Amino acid sequence: MGTLREDAESIVLSAIEAVLPDQAVRRALSGLRFPGRLYLVAVGKAAWRMARAALEALEQKPDGGVVISKYGHIPAALPGLACFEAGHPVPDENSVRAARAALELTEGLEESDTVLFLLSGGGSALFEAPLIPLGELRDVTDQLLASGADIVEMNTVRKRLSAVKGGKFALHCTPARIEAVILSDILGDPLDMIASGPVSPDSATCAEALAVAEKYRLRLSEQAAACLREETPKSLPNVRAQINGSVRELCRAAAARCRELGYEPVLLTDQLACEAREAGRFLAAVARTHAAEGRPMAYLAGGETVVHVTGKGKGGRNQELALAAAEGLAGLENAALISVGSDGTDGPTDAAGGYVDGGTCALLASKGVSIPAILAENDAYRALSESGGLIVTGPTGTNVNDIAVLLLR
Amino acid sequence: MGTLREDAESIVLSAIEAVLPDQAVRRALSGLRFPGRLYLVAVGKAAWRMARAALEALEQKPDGGVVISKYGHIPAALPGLACFEAGHPVPDENSVRAARAALELTEGLEESDTVLFLLSGGGSALFEAPLIPLGELRDVTDQLLASGADIVEMNTVRKRLSAVKGGKFALHCTPARIEAVILSDILGDPLDMIASGPVSPDSATCAEALAVAEKYRLRLSEQAAACLREETPKSLPNVRAQINGSVRELCRAAAARCRELGYEPVLLTDQLACEAREAGRFLAAVARTHAAEGRPMAYLAGGETVVHVTGKGKGGRNQELALAAAEGLAGLENAALISVGSDGTDGPTDAAGGYVDGGTCALLASKGVSIPAILAENDAYRALSESGGLIVTGPTGTNVNDIAVLLLR
Repeated sequence: MGTLREDAESIVLSAIEAVLPDQAVRRALSGLRFPGRLYLVAVGKAAWRMARAALEALEQKPDGGVVISKYGHIPAALPGLACFEAGHPVPDENSVRAARAALELTEGLEESDTVLFLLSGGGSALFEAPLIPLGELRDVTDQLLASGADIVEMNTVRKRLSAVKGGKFALHCTPARIEAVILSDILGDPLDMIASGPVSPDSATCAEALAVAEKYRLRLSEQAAACLREETPKSLPNVRAQINGSVRELCRAAAARCRELGYEPVLLTDQLACEAREAGRFLAAVARTHAAEGRPMAYLAGGETVVHVTGKGKGGRNQELALAAAEGLAGLENAALISVGSDGTDGPTDAAGGYVDGGTCALLASKGVSIPAILAENDAYRALSESGGLIVTGPTGTNVNDIAVLLLR
Repeated sequence: MGTLREDAESIVLSAIEAVLPDQAVRRALSGLRFPGRLYLVAVGKAAWRMARAALEALEQKPDGGVVISKYGHIPAALPGLACFEAGHPVPDENSVRAARAALELTEGLEESDTVLFLLSGGGSALFEAPLIPLGELRDVTDQLLASGADIVEMNTVRKRLSAVKGGKFALHCTPARIEAVILSDILGDPLDMIASGPVSPDSATCAEALAVAEKYRLRLSEQAAACLREETPKSLPNVRAQINGSVRELCRAAAARCRELGYEPVLLTDQLACEAREAGRFLAAVARTHAAEGRPMAYLAGGETVVHVTGKGKGGRNQELALAAAEGLAGLENAALISVGSDGTDGPTDAAGGYVDGGTCALLASKGVSIPAILAENDAYRALSESGGLIVTGPTGTNVNDIAVLLLR
């Protein structure tokens, strides 16, 4: 063990390291051999890094491939792969062009062929082959947004208007095998939600899609209405999907590092979704209850909290969570809390998150900084900068939500 | 095991049973023998019940005693004990009269004598012997309130203006032994805060008291100023205090019942103090993470959450906590959450709290009840009444905060 600060940083940094796209892809591909031809399709914000890692990790050279990412996210060409940049968060003509290239590449495959499908967040916009004109697709999306439809209802309709979503890309590749490596940025890892699930069976039915259209009285062309009546795949036996680099894995990696350092890890949740500051207060209450036990413990909470901004300060959800915990930790000698975003960017700041311990509150008070006043202004960045509690990593190249670690010893 | 509902109710009801004043006193006194004379002084909202339980539990009859409670809280005379009713939350002449009776009773005791001191919440107002006129004491309190002093600052000053607070009642009883049984209603059980600590060493110093007077420019008589310069006891070797019926014990008793029913209990905290609905969401996130493990687990959180009322509905913090958890539990077949106030009264309702499970959300939806809309109106009572989730116990006779139990299996 080092200082509480050293241990806290070591735990979250090694957890982030473990879920970097490169690592996730390397782990997923290690030892894999493919019998026939191999094609690579990488889609999402991390597509380029995932594809590069795959080229390094694979023992055999792919027979072709397509890489599709956001504008500015393809820093260099990759040997043997066609790289595309496209629109995000709204799909554009390049999204369609890129998806067509992937569909052509994987046309007429055989049973012994394999498509290595590398998927990360953002794929829903970047990878789109609409079955109706792009303009009409946007209009239907706008109608759904305006009517107050929820995300599940939106996707139920939109998957049917696409040639690649809702498992239809996998259907297109049949009978080839699909080896999918998925970097999840959605809590609970619902496979068919990530990038609208190009290689995942669709959990919604035609009846449900038609009910949504009815409920919101959607104006649809004949062509679009016909798409809603077309059933999506409910089973895709040719797909093997490995979820990698999810928040669950972030927590698992953090727990492993806790054990190495001598702390007993307790995973509270990997699906945290409440108000950031209240999560901090909850964790501080855990600290006050167990701090006196004198056992090295680490309580982990992964997920993505929310901040309802009311002030004009600078901060992010991880910084607010940490700062709000500081009051509850006050005076505890052997307690510390760290909370960071795995992407290295917490809110509109250059920090990844924050660190507080039993001394933070007194230190801030001595500098005339009031935590309640700071929280009212959503100004956690300033307070943590005063207390030396900002955690700065720079962009990490991944985004699998946040992790908070409470250390007691 | 019974149904989730049966188990949840059984756990919280048996926990409340264990912290009832009668039980707490009986447990504390069981097997105790006193060498010399025995005097009983009971102070607080539960004074009468605690005194009655003591008379039943003691093998020897007290040589005298004083019982002091709120108006309307002395339902009958107790043999050999003088009963007083007095002002709460503002001390009145009867508070002073009652305290004087206790001081007279315990005047000139010897080393072999014992004072059995039974303390419960509300004692601060009910038991008061001011060292300055009662009117001036009220004026100082008003000045402190108006200046924005916090509760610690208020008590630092007020303990010095009293002949019984800040350990001074214990000092008065010296050299007799004091056997204190304390029913705690303050999180973390800070002994010198409960009823302003008549038998507890005072953690604040003269210098701190004078600094508060200076900071808020208190107008004090010569007499009052002299009191502030008088040091309070910092050590009371003749006192043995047993905290009983605290929220910690509530959690411990709940955990014991969980084990009996076959659930492995995990105490998250016994000092919960965050926003009620966010605590519910945090616990639901714990449920979603661990529900699939299939092990019978019980996560316990004791304390006292808060509700920032924005709507005009009916509810209480326990009902809000439970209802807010319902959305996160939705669809989980083997998860349930119960949250109750140990006093049997949650907010201005006839319910003690609420119960929700994986089916609550769908049940409410089928009745057209929207949980977000209900929460916006602070109307949890109505929703839980629709879902059959109200827990009604009636007043329990104790008040040691709340407990929430998340059951998974």
